[in-house]
Amino acid sequence: MRIEMSNEQIQAIVQDSLVGYQYLQSISLAERAALMHAIADEIEALDDELIQTAYAESALPLPRLQGEKGRTINQWRSYANAVKTGIYAEARIDKSDGAAKADIRKYNKGIGPVAVFGASNFPFAFSTAGGDTASAIGAGCPVIVKEHPGHPKTSQLMADAISRALAKFGAPASVFGYVHGEGNAVGEALVLHPAVKAVAFTGSFRGGKALFDLGAKREEPIPVFSEMGSVNPVFVLPAYLEQNVDTFATQYIASLTLGVGQFCTNPGLLIAVKGPVLDQLKTLLQKEVQQVSEATMLHPGIASAYQSGKDKLANQSAVSLLGEGIEGDSKSAVAAVFCTEGAAFLKNHALAEEVFGPAGLLIECADASELKDVMEDLAGQLTITFAATAADVQQHPALFKIAQEKCGRLLFNGMPTGVEVVYAMQHGGPYPSTTDSRFTSVGPDAVKRFLRPLSFQNWPNEFLPAELQDENPLQIERIIDNKRVLA
Amino acid sequence: MRIEMSNEQIQAIVQDSLVGYQYLQSISLAERAALMHAIADEIEALDDELIQTAYAESALPLPRLQGEKGRTINQWRSYANAVKTGIYAEARIDKSDGAAKADIRKYNKGIGPVAVFGASNFPFAFSTAGGDTASAIGAGCPVIVKEHPGHPKTSQLMADAISRALAKFGAPASVFGYVHGEGNAVGEALVLHPAVKAVAFTGSFRGGKALFDLGAKREEPIPVFSEMGSVNPVFVLPAYLEQNVDTFATQYIASLTLGVGQFCTNPGLLIAVKGPVLDQLKTLLQKEVQQVSEATMLHPGIASAYQSGKDKLANQSAVSLLGEGIEGDSKSAVAAVFCTEGAAFLKNHALAEEVFGPAGLLIECADASELKDVMEDLAGQLTITFAATAADVQQHPALFKIAQEKCGRLLFNGMPTGVEVVYAMQHGGPYPSTTDSRFTSVGPDAVKRFLRPLSFQNWPNEFLPAELQDENPLQIERIIDNKRVLA
Repeated sequence: MRIEMSNEQIQAIVQDSLVGYQYLQSISLAERAALMHAIADEIEALDDELIQTAYAESALPLPRLQGEKGRTINQWRSYANAVKTGIYAEARIDKSDGAAKADIRKYNKGIGPVAVFGASNFPFAFSTAGGDTASAIGAGCPVIVKEHPGHPKTSQLMADAISRALAKFGAPASVFGYVHGEGNAVGEALVLHPAVKAVAFTGSFRGGKALFDLGAKREEPIPVFSEMGSVNPVFVLPAYLEQNVDTFATQYIASLTLGVGQFCTNPGLLIAVKGPVLDQLKTLLQKEVQQVSEATMLHPGIASAYQSGKDKLANQSAVSLLGEGIEGDSKSAVAAVFCTEGAAFLKNHALAEEVFGPAGLLIECADASELKDVMEDLAGQLTITFAATAADVQQHPALFKIAQEKCGRLLFNGMPTGVEVVYAMQHGGPYPSTTDSRFTSVGPDAVKRFLRPLSFQNWPNEFLPAELQDENPLQIERIIDNKRVLA
Repeated sequence: MRIEMSNEQIQAIVQDSLVGYQYLQSISLAERAALMHAIADEIEALDDELIQTAYAESALPLPRLQGEKGRTINQWRSYANAVKTGIYAEARIDKSDGAAKADIRKYNKGIGPVAVFGASNFPFAFSTAGGDTASAIGAGCPVIVKEHPGHPKTSQLMADAISRALAKFGAPASVFGYVHGEGNAVGEALVLHPAVKAVAFTGSFRGGKALFDLGAKREEPIPVFSEMGSVNPVFVLPAYLEQNVDTFATQYIASLTLGVGQFCTNPGLLIAVKGPVLDQLKTLLQKEVQQVSEATMLHPGIASAYQSGKDKLANQSAVSLLGEGIEGDSKSAVAAVFCTEGAAFLKNHALAEEVFGPAGLLIECADASELKDVMEDLAGQLTITFAATAADVQQHPALFKIAQEKCGRLLFNGMPTGVEVVYAMQHGGPYPSTTDSRFTSVGPDAVKRFLRPLSFQNWPNEFLPAELQDENPLQIERIIDNKRVLA
């Protein structure tokens, strides 16, 4: 077993990140983008050892891991391309009128070193070299990653790839720090270090909220972006159900059990109004879920938490088991669909808790009004999905309106699993799905989390950051004297 | 004396703001801008009663109050114009490729009701109808203002103007709530109400930090934007001082004593290297400050806090009084300049505390290296000013670099008092000058504090917010398939 780092070692690594910060502040947006592409190249060059290591540590299927590797590389490249356009610099120039009005120019700079805590369920895309690390470096911030205990070897391979890329590029190693150690002390040391100016976390509510509280209680409070998951309710409306009952059941069970249900956007709640078609759906759901094979979860701890969550749900009054997948051993997860009544759900908030894994709860509402009550009762979610026709939406205007207050992404049909890495993605949502609904952790806009504006008043052109110089040497878009000027 | 509101009344007003929120969500950006102009019109229509009332409550000179009224109107109008362009909607459209890729569209919507706590030193521009209220409504958020105890009648006049504007415009009264009551209970009730989704505050560190902590500790944590002031250091560099010693002394004392020193951007610290020219500056500062007449502060509590702050500073070891203004009575403030040595300043953090009022502290550094140490030692500031020539800046690269990490606005010559309402303004800065360095509270960008993104996946065009519809009915700028498209 590896010797874990001492507190002194960790403190030194964080302190050193300030050197990496100065470096990132000193290079241009184009150079920063080039550095990010260099990191992407190095990840791309990782061979089958990476995939096999991640497979051994996470039990995720090989094709999924290959796909996730590609997604991770795409994150680095697409964030790099976005950074290069200057969109996140948000350069604004208000020129002097030659009289009383001063010359004032503003741009966004990196906030400082960022501590990153990766997720177990995405060993590449949301871990050591994942979206948080890419977006922080995209913002000009060095990163200190806490190794994920669920996949330490995978983490280390990715960390080494980033370090190699930095060395080849000629950047100081301190742009990327990597720490490991047992228990919570390492994470606390990172969040409490005065040099750290922001934190990104993906994982459980308990872990994410603890880091948030720690960040708020520091002598200098810092933003903590915790993405803590949600139950991603799917509202199935009458006309849609009437027309699509067969395909919907298949689609829902496929999404619920995809990746052994280990997605933040897993559709844990299904809500519909009682009636003969819903009875038909129940039969279909039962049939579908009974065909799902047991599967190995990320690690035994997660599998046992899943089993406890399922047991807890099964033991609530007014909850019954609709159907279960094919029985497995103690280390693997058996998919399940439970059902309850709208009135029971509204009375018992335990039913709204996330069970991380392939377990769904169907809520049968008495009528459209109860459907609305359930929507109203929901806590903040990453996603809400309408399985609906256009007529359904028109007939449920309140449902549609309330949904917009409850989530970060609102789907019309389709399933919430699958989070595209695009500008328009919002992966985040009202508390408790995240600690800060104002930012996304997927897509280039994730960069925005790690920036702060700085104004320069009456500075000679030569001293201004390139983003604000008259000549616009970086060829970025800016707002000049109240007018957007493209590159 | 007026009967203060009961807790029940306050709860009802906050609850009612959700009606105002639904209204603001239902109107277009253009209509929202029109509403803001209607409020500006109504403030413009307020006659001399407003000015006289504010004069009686704040002792601020009449011309200053006239100017501040104009600035307040300008805030509403310029924020309205910015909102109308759609810049804060940040609309992003990623179209489907007709195959696997979904159609995803994102825009920023108002976060929900905002509680506003105004400042005593700007009864118009940073109070009831000030920049926080204007920017929250600009974001599509209703506002609940806590009446300022220092200028309750002025607050009420402004609140009435907003209410009249809402009525004329046909907007519900609940877009703007107004509460008053004694002690801290009213403020706490606002921040803790579950409907409130953000807080804006301008005032003391103690008040601002208490609200921030309250916001973080809620069951659902919310962002609290507290602007808490700073000492706005002015670094006077050698070549500049050599050339401008006379004018600089006059300029500095004018800025220090402007508005009886009651600006968040008041230049409380002056830092320079010892030598014959600095001795000359000291003589000039003494002469200048001795000509400043005593003046009435905003209210007796502020005047007595100023006196205590001055006494505390005077009693620190290694601090001496350089000069004082013309003696006044107990209710008014006498300007003062103190001086100390760089080494003493570095040893005693009490010397870096803000004394709200016209008191400055000159720090005499042994050499350029100590100047840098003082910069390094500073806490976060709203502004830092360089009184410098270009050669001075070139000869102090580290000083210039560190300054960028310590403030929100960096001035080259000039004085920090005077905060322009423009896109490029950053009025904010690293903690403890504010609780969130990532946002400004002056300029249209202040709107950004109260927004959160919402994505729509695969929604039919008819259900999308106008910001995201194919036809771009609002004629706003957007990013479509990775490309900025102007209106």
